[in-house]
Amino acid sequence: METLLIGIAGGTGSGKTTVTCRIAETFAGEVCVIYHDNYYRAHDELTYEERAKLNYDHPDAFDTPLFLNDLKALKAGRTVECPVYDYSAHNRSKDETVRIEPKRIIVADGILIFYEKELRELFDIKIFIDTDADVRILRRLMRDVSQRGRTVESVVTQYLTTVKPMHEQFVEPTKRYADVIIPEGGRNPVALEMLFSRIRQHMGG
Amino acid sequence: METLLIGIAGGTGSGKTTVTCRIAETFAGEVCVIYHDNYYRAHDELTYEERAKLNYDHPDAFDTPLFLNDLKALKAGRTVECPVYDYSAHNRSKDETVRIEPKRIIVADGILIFYEKELRELFDIKIFIDTDADVRILRRLMRDVSQRGRTVESVVTQYLTTVKPMHEQFVEPTKRYADVIIPEGGRNPVALEMLFSRIRQHMGG
Repeated sequence: METLLIGIAGGTGSGKTTVTCRIAETFAGEVCVIYHDNYYRAHDELTYEERAKLNYDHPDAFDTPLFLNDLKALKAGRTVECPVYDYSAHNRSKDETVRIEPKRIIVADGILIFYEKELRELFDIKIFIDTDADVRILRRLMRDVSQRGRTVESVVTQYLTTVKPMHEQFVEPTKRYADVIIPEGGRNPVALEMLFSRIRQHMGG
Repeated sequence: METLLIGIAGGTGSGKTTVTCRIAETFAGEVCVIYHDNYYRAHDELTYEERAKLNYDHPDAFDTPLFLNDLKALKAGRTVECPVYDYSAHNRSKDETVRIEPKRIIVADGILIFYEKELRELFDIKIFIDTDADVRILRRLMRDVSQRGRTVESVVTQYLTTVKPMHEQFVEPTKRYADVIIPEGGRNPVALEMLFSRIRQHMGG
């Protein structure tokens, strides 16, 4: 089974997960999706208060060796038990995992998946979703306030103290490793159609 | 005959013409190419010395109404007699034209083809080739010195006085109209393969 491994990166609110979902819908049953966000490191050695203060936008926040291992397993056609991150506990879930079955199209989604060389080199297609910072923070603000019960002030404070500086230091520079840069993500039908054509070609249609 | 009109823009030395040529080679016989560069305005009213001093990197240097007219003709399946620009005379050639036969794939190539709204809206796919400015000037320098007999000093002076400021003012801002941004142009096989897949899909293969 020849796989096509597509990496979708981009800053918070860029629209990368919309692109990931559009691929999964369009090629339903042929795609497996793996989210780097599920691979935040386990921190059983820290208290809840200590874990709440961790910087979740830094490359070190992720258990990238495990993510790399699981991506390689999917590529080799093996099923993966993907960890689940428990946001309410700020820790990896103790007993919950999600089974990911290997498919011919593998989509990996995450803000920092092009940061580590070994991970980056695994992808057949590296796509960076590029959206203006003002649009991105507004999308994040709306989402965190309406769906996650956060206050506007807490979202703004977190954005300015960690999300923005980490984006500029670690996420934005990985754009130069992208094969293709897609402005506006899921709201870009012309770019999506190019990507879908490439996937159809891989599927032999 | 349903056409697919692809615009390839990007700064001088970005690699856009390499991408244009790769499309033309890969789909030989199915592609017609139209270069905005052939549509520099005729300036019979000026002397040679006056024409030599014109700013060739400004949107006003181009006869965009004629270019638009010819693109629409190709899209409608009509043959076009494309003007030829005589660089030695700094003027449109008096008697030479190039015949462009309409094809199902039409590629338009130029630094400023996304500048005018009416032109921009004609394209089915707008691609911007994005290459670092230092790489672009080095490519231009090598080309102009080795192939066009220019001195290093004259290329540098022209670059700093007009090419660079016009790029920043007019070319670079049109990147935001692109559907897809391709880093490094012709040296990017993953992006080219995505584009070729899209073209094959149009051709019904």
